[in-house]
Amino acid sequence: MASNVPYLELNDGNKIPQVGFGLWKVDNPIAAETVYNAIKSGYRLFDGACDYGNEVECGQGVAKAIKDGLVKREDLTIVSKLWNSFHDPEQVEPIVKKQLADWGVDYFDIYYIHFPLSLKYVSPETRYPPGWFYDGDSKVEYGSASLQSTWKAFEDLKKSGLAKSIAVSNYTGPLLHDLFTYAEIKPAVLQIEHHPYFVQPNIITLAKEHGIVVTAYSSFGPASFIECDMKIAEDAKPLLDHEIVSKIASAHGKTTAQVLLRWATQRGLAVIPKSNNPKRLAENLDVTNWDLKQDEIDAISAFDLNLKFNAPTNYGIPIYLFP
Amino acid sequence: MASNVPYLELNDGNKIPQVGFGLWKVDNPIAAETVYNAIKSGYRLFDGACDYGNEVECGQGVAKAIKDGLVKREDLTIVSKLWNSFHDPEQVEPIVKKQLADWGVDYFDIYYIHFPLSLKYVSPETRYPPGWFYDGDSKVEYGSASLQSTWKAFEDLKKSGLAKSIAVSNYTGPLLHDLFTYAEIKPAVLQIEHHPYFVQPNIITLAKEHGIVVTAYSSFGPASFIECDMKIAEDAKPLLDHEIVSKIASAHGKTTAQVLLRWATQRGLAVIPKSNNPKRLAENLDVTNWDLKQDEIDAISAFDLNLKFNAPTNYGIPIYLFP
Repeated sequence: MASNVPYLELNDGNKIPQVGFGLWKVDNPIAAETVYNAIKSGYRLFDGACDYGNEVECGQGVAKAIKDGLVKREDLTIVSKLWNSFHDPEQVEPIVKKQLADWGVDYFDIYYIHFPLSLKYVSPETRYPPGWFYDGDSKVEYGSASLQSTWKAFEDLKKSGLAKSIAVSNYTGPLLHDLFTYAEIKPAVLQIEHHPYFVQPNIITLAKEHGIVVTAYSSFGPASFIECDMKIAEDAKPLLDHEIVSKIASAHGKTTAQVLLRWATQRGLAVIPKSNNPKRLAENLDVTNWDLKQDEIDAISAFDLNLKFNAPTNYGIPIYLFP
Repeated sequence: MASNVPYLELNDGNKIPQVGFGLWKVDNPIAAETVYNAIKSGYRLFDGACDYGNEVECGQGVAKAIKDGLVKREDLTIVSKLWNSFHDPEQVEPIVKKQLADWGVDYFDIYYIHFPLSLKYVSPETRYPPGWFYDGDSKVEYGSASLQSTWKAFEDLKKSGLAKSIAVSNYTGPLLHDLFTYAEIKPAVLQIEHHPYFVQPNIITLAKEHGIVVTAYSSFGPASFIECDMKIAEDAKPLLDHEIVSKIASAHGKTTAQVLLRWATQRGLAVIPKSNNPKRLAENLDVTNWDLKQDEIDAISAFDLNLKFNAPTNYGIPIYLFP
């Protein structure tokens, strides 16, 4: 069954479902089945990445769903991301082709620059996915690819059709402004960490000025990071049982997860929650056809602490990228 | 009299006093006298900018001090900044020459990119300083100069000797990482808003990794912005009479301003306070030869709210640059 999730139009004429499925931390042994079940539940967008290390299995889930007649390839929005160690322009197309082969598809609907950071190239034969450390363990080695040179390679990806839409993730306001000075093709989507503790209203306004759809990741805030043993996430007040969110949820007969997702979608953002639980899988899709009141949205926005969890240093990685 | 402010060595071999005088918001009618008196009090670094609109008068203060035999040009560190509307590489050298002529000197000791943002060129004949708006009033027009192209022009400034050291201001971590991929000459200094509500430990660590000296501006936090009628500054708890800072100040027989400055200098940063008051002018220089205890430093660092005041939107300017 396909859900009635609305589609958002991108600045390049493509469209994407406003609610998708995020593949970060979907364990390999269950990834194929998870994707298959999500398609069955109505999910049509799958947000993957080299770094998640599960693209082969996610592709198997897609292949089975197509084989079983649940969907056709063109019904799906398959998303992936360039890892930091492949920023050299000459590495972009080869790694996209490998990632496409892993998924078993011949184009990505959206392909992102995962982080605004160039790390030294690690060949897929040496280690894949390569991760943050050059030796897989403790040695940080930076690359020499400017973001401009990587973006130029992305424009070529779009021209060659390997990616229908090109996009950036974890970009900040100044990086977008700089990109606008040199981009021949603007990003279609900006994917950022976005939850009530990290609202970033200015970058959302900036994206809107340029017709860039914003996709929120980690919509439940600290919950996504506690399983990574992140201290600042453990120290943050949980959002999924926050009393204000709970009260709003009760008033609407919804779950707190649904309220947190609706808080984003009602403001025009796309979301990519994840769940292994079939009930929550379905609930997370039901976040577009009912409305929060403006004062409820404002009450949640007022939680803002300008608190970003997903920074390398918060995992103990000595890469000083974010404040 | 020259003070005994220590000098910090830059990664290009130059040296700068750790304590300087910030020229932002020094009114034109008193600027020459203020600079002259500051030199008399022992200040040797003057941190100016096109945007402050007082470079002619500040230069007059310098000229009088030199004429009166208080200092020689080579005793001074004269600092200026490129405004956003002069980012086009071909505009950089002409505007530096104009700024040098305004100051009445033939080189800058440090020349900064003031903000990581390219605005459309406004000729000095039309309006100077040009400010944030293309028409001086309400129309934002962006420029098309990438930061890479502007930085290349800065490298030429250093090579030609118009600037002894080149530097960046208001840069963030991802911008520095990107700059490192294309810079032939690294910035010698990073100037950032830095106070107990905006500590940014990661960018300070990043700068240190690259031998970049960090200069803190707005060391007193909200105090600098209240005079700009900034609501979020008015809403913030003042630091200059904060009870914890006051207690630490009493323990050392110092003022709260001195404690806030020492909190920065003891951690290796340079500072550029401003005062029109002769007593405070002298006090602000006395922030390097006594020490806070580590737990006092930590107590102040714990005020961090990741709260940046100096963002265009906080002045009501619709330029969505920072979160």
